[in-house]
This record gives sequence, structure tokens and C-alpha cells, in this order.
Amino acid sequence: MQQLLDEYIQPIFDNPLLAAKNDSAVFPVTAGQLAFTTDSYVVKPLFFPGGDIGKLAVCGTLNDLAMSGAKPLYLTCSLILEEGFALKDLRRILTSMQETAVSAGVQIVTGDTKVVEHGKADGIYINTAGVGILDTEKTLNTKAIQADDVIIINSDLGRHGLAVMLEREGFDFEHHIHSDCADLSSLVNDLMQADIKIHCMRDLTRGGLASTLIELAVSAKLAFEIQQAAIPVHDDVRSLCEILGFDPLYIANEGCFALCVPASHAKQTLKVMHRHPLGKQATIIGQVKQAIEQEGYVSLITEFGIARGLDLLSGEQLPRIC
Amino acid sequence: MQQLLDEYIQPIFDNPLLAAKNDSAVFPVTAGQLAFTTDSYVVKPLFFPGGDIGKLAVCGTLNDLAMSGAKPLYLTCSLILEEGFALKDLRRILTSMQETAVSAGVQIVTGDTKVVEHGKADGIYINTAGVGILDTEKTLNTKAIQADDVIIINSDLGRHGLAVMLEREGFDFEHHIHSDCADLSSLVNDLMQADIKIHCMRDLTRGGLASTLIELAVSAKLAFEIQQAAIPVHDDVRSLCEILGFDPLYIANEGCFALCVPASHAKQTLKVMHRHPLGKQATIIGQVKQAIEQEGYVSLITEFGIARGLDLLSGEQLPRIC
Repeated sequence: MQQLLDEYIQPIFDNPLLAAKNDSAVFPVTAGQLAFTTDSYVVKPLFFPGGDIGKLAVCGTLNDLAMSGAKPLYLTCSLILEEGFALKDLRRILTSMQETAVSAGVQIVTGDTKVVEHGKADGIYINTAGVGILDTEKTLNTKAIQADDVIIINSDLGRHGLAVMLEREGFDFEHHIHSDCADLSSLVNDLMQADIKIHCMRDLTRGGLASTLIELAVSAKLAFEIQQAAIPVHDDVRSLCEILGFDPLYIANEGCFALCVPASHAKQTLKVMHRHPLGKQATIIGQVKQAIEQEGYVSLITEFGIARGLDLLSGEQLPRIC
Repeated sequence: MQQLLDEYIQPIFDNPLLAAKNDSAVFPVTAGQLAFTTDSYVVKPLFFPGGDIGKLAVCGTLNDLAMSGAKPLYLTCSLILEEGFALKDLRRILTSMQETAVSAGVQIVTGDTKVVEHGKADGIYINTAGVGILDTEKTLNTKAIQADDVIIINSDLGRHGLAVMLEREGFDFEHHIHSDCADLSSLVNDLMQADIKIHCMRDLTRGGLASTLIELAVSAKLAFEIQQAAIPVHDDVRSLCEILGFDPLYIANEGCFALCVPASHAKQTLKVMHRHPLGKQATIIGQVKQAIEQEGYVSLITEFGIARGLDLLSGEQLPRIC
């Protein structure tokens, strides 16, 4: 364990807080609001087109911090390793974590490693927790969503879930689907720095766009209406979903988010987003409305102009995707 | 997943930050130093005399914060559940986490749940991360340890590791060994409030007292000398260790810690500790010395007056203990 720490984890995550080898990382904070989040990652397979469990574990936690409007500062890394897990794979995963962290300007400052018997843990499970700081004036939450807000997403849907599933099942389709796994914090930072009144942001992970919007609408006690024709979906994703019987609206993404802003701020929001590599496809997909019959109702206006209500799926469409 | 969250996790951990269901918990902090830590728990079995994986997951992270001199504030709870895990066991574990958190005055404010296939994860793995605040003047670390410091521990050794191992292996010994699993933060708070110049604290978890002291001595570039006769070990622990061939100095504890303080503060330290239920057995077990031949050397003066050097064990004496 000491050897693992000294030869792999410390040199790769190399920073003074981690090197201090204390039970906790200790760092100064200024007065304000702190955001605190965690996620465990059990994705199968560990490597997939567009990413790996390490990149995912860093991006996922950075994105959870970013969605609250916070600037990510520090991350933890807790590993559950299966006995006999290949050290070259561990090195590759840790390196991927570090590259993603460095590029986001954050440090992995403390962690933990446990080993379980062969046959448990599918090689590796990773937990990351993160802290970030917020501008006190800009706390975002579902209660801030208002009727007439526009709903914007930054990117096309469904790539992460499909990329992982295709890799796992070994389907022999010819396709160009890579996971959208990405750190959204710099795009969010651009939005926070611009004078835009963001009411709420949420990343479109488990359950995809549909589940996320239903959760937001329920919590805000409002209704959402989205236009199917406005929702970007890559052609390969669309075709494969048709063949496999999936709905791209319910597939997990790891680099997509939705935000609700006042209609008067929509143009400025899109302008800021379009300037960022992860926001080039940013587009308005719908509006928030007063709830008439049912709070939390999300209706999809199909390409044929017919409205249908979206439901929460029971069970996951694709398990072990993140 | 939604149901699990709404019917189990939210009602048990019941607090407004968690109920906000945001991607991150957001709370105010004052300027100062923040301590941040994490641990994953894979203990087997999940329930053992003196505790369970839930109590362990909260105490372990509280103790890591406390060892840095921080007052714990908020925790996360990330679950990896095996498909089919009994909901009554989940409820029991979450309730145990909440009881421990409430009694320590902290809140579990955010979390995550993943489900893996039957046969993986042994029912449940838990990760907790925690944040706490420090008095800026009182940062503790191994560099602060000085020659002539005394080494004090709060309690007898070896109970946690043995209690878990006996429960797991189903040995039919008659014994009264309960895990020492406990939240040390209130005892540490008493010490921090008293005017004691603590140089360093460390909990005696994986690898036990011996491994912990070696790590401290190596990091401090000093030598430690401890007296075997001064180290409290429960009679049942001592006898079972003899029968089973274990060394109590290397067994994991979950409610024991060592601290280094100047000799002039020893009396006051013991006085404060003896007033607390978890410090009644507090005692001086040794001294810090200048390293003569080898930095990081820890010598044990046996009951026969012979000095022997302690080594780091390769591999864990008892795996899956925390």
C-alpha cells in the first residue's frame, strides 16, 4: 500500500498538499460560500471511446461543482481496487485523472485506497469528492427557475451512454460515437463572469435530458415545454438509438448541461456559450411555463407538432454507465 | 433510484442542504483554514460487535478531520450497492450513519448511489468525504514533532481489528472484544480548546500503532522510543493475539489515536483526556528522540528491557478491516 502510494499515486498527482501525507488536506479559504459534492464511478468498461473511468471521475465531480455556480478548487480520489488489477491500467487511469485536473486548474489533494478480493469491484471503482467556492450573490437553485425562462443546452445528446454501451457489448456497428465526457467548469465560469442572470444549471447525466428536466420542473413546481426539432442529436446516435430501441432523451451525457435563464438574457447567454469549444452547439430547446394541471409536467412537442408528456423511467435504461 | 433517495436516504439523513437535491451542497464558510478528507469503507462483515460499516464510515472521516485539528462540519455519503442488497440492512446502516453524525454535530449534506451486479461489492461499499474548519494558529503536522516530545495514546489497542476478524471468521472463542469504533472529534476538541501545544495527532487505523508511529517518525526525520509495558492492551485481545499469532501493535483501531506534545504539556494533556469517556486510559507510551543512526527508527523497549526496532509490515495483517 505504501509502495502504491509512493510509486504511483504521489508522483502522478504530485502536489504539496498530497505530499504532506496528513489525514486531511488543509488549505486556506476566504469567507463566502463553499460547494461540496461527491460521486462514485463504477463505469464498465473502464476505457471507452472518448474517455475512461479516471477522466469521468474528475469531470463528473467538477461538473457537479460547476452546476452550483462554484469554481472548483480541490478534489479527493478514493480507489477501491480489485486484487490483481493491472498496474499499467492503474497508471493510465491516474494519469488521465491528473491531466483532467490540471487542465481544469484543480488539485487532487487527498485520497484513500482499499483493495478487495479478485472477482469484486470489476478492476477499479473510483470516488471523487470536490470543493469549490461561489460568489455569494450568485447562488443557483431550482427555486430560482421562473415561468418564461428559456431552457438552453450546450451540446448534442446521448454520446456518452451509447459510446460506453457499444464498447461494453462489443457491437460491431460502424460508428463515430465518442463519449462527450468533458469538464464544463470553464464554460460555466465564462457564463458566471458575464453579466447573465442564470437561474439554474444541471448536467444531463443519469437519466439524460428528460429525467433531469422532470426533476427540475417538479422541484420548481412549474411546467417545461421542449421542442424535439430543436434538440441536437448526432446522426450516428439517432440511427443507433432507432436500431437498438433507445431514446436519446434518456441517455446519460457527461459533457452536456441545461440552464434556465430569463428570456431577455438568452441572446447574451448563447453568445458567451458559442465562443467556448464546449458550447458551439448551444441552443434554446424550450421554455418554462406556469403549471396548469400538473406541477413538474414536461411536455415534448414532437417534430409532427404533437405534444406528449415525458415520464421518469423506472430503472436505468443503461446501467453501469458512470 | 429516485424511490431509494426519497424513501430511505432523504428521510434518514433529513436536513435542508440534502433536501435541496442540488448537485452540490452549498453552505457559508468563514475565512480560515479548511480541512478536507475522504475514505472508502469495504469492511467485511458489515455488522460486527461494537459497530457496523455505517458507523465506521462516519467515525473514520470525522477522525481524519479531527486529527488535523479541525472541527468537522459536513460529510458526504456515497454508496455502491450490490443488486439485491436487503433494504432492511441498508436502513440499519444509514440510521447508524445518521446517529453517529448527529451525535458529532455534523450533517450528511450530499451523496450519490450506484448499483452494481449481484456478486460485486459484498452488499455495500461506502465512501464518506468530510470538511471541517481549523483555527488558523493551530495547524498540526508531522514537521512540528520535536525531539523530547512525549507520545500519548488515548486507549487500549487492537479491539477493532480483532472484533471484525473474529466475527468474519466465525471463531468460537468466548471473548468480550468489541470494536473501539468511535468519533474522536469531541475529545480532540477538548484538547484544542485547552491551552495545549499539540504538535501532531494521528489515528491508529490501518497498520495499527506500529505503522503509524513509523510513518510519523520517518516524516519528522526523528526517532521514537516506546515502552511495551506502558501500552494498554485488553487481556482478551492479548490472549487472542497470542493464540492467533497477531501483534496488537499492528492491528487496526478505529477509536485510538496518538499525539505528540512537549513534555512540559504532558500533565495537562492527560488531565484533559482523562475527563473524556474516550480518554480515560490516556497514557504516555514513549518519547521522541533525535535520530542517531536512522531517521524514522521506532524502537520498542520490551517488558524485559530489550530494545527492538519496529518494521513496516508488507501486506496487511488483516485485510478488509475498514
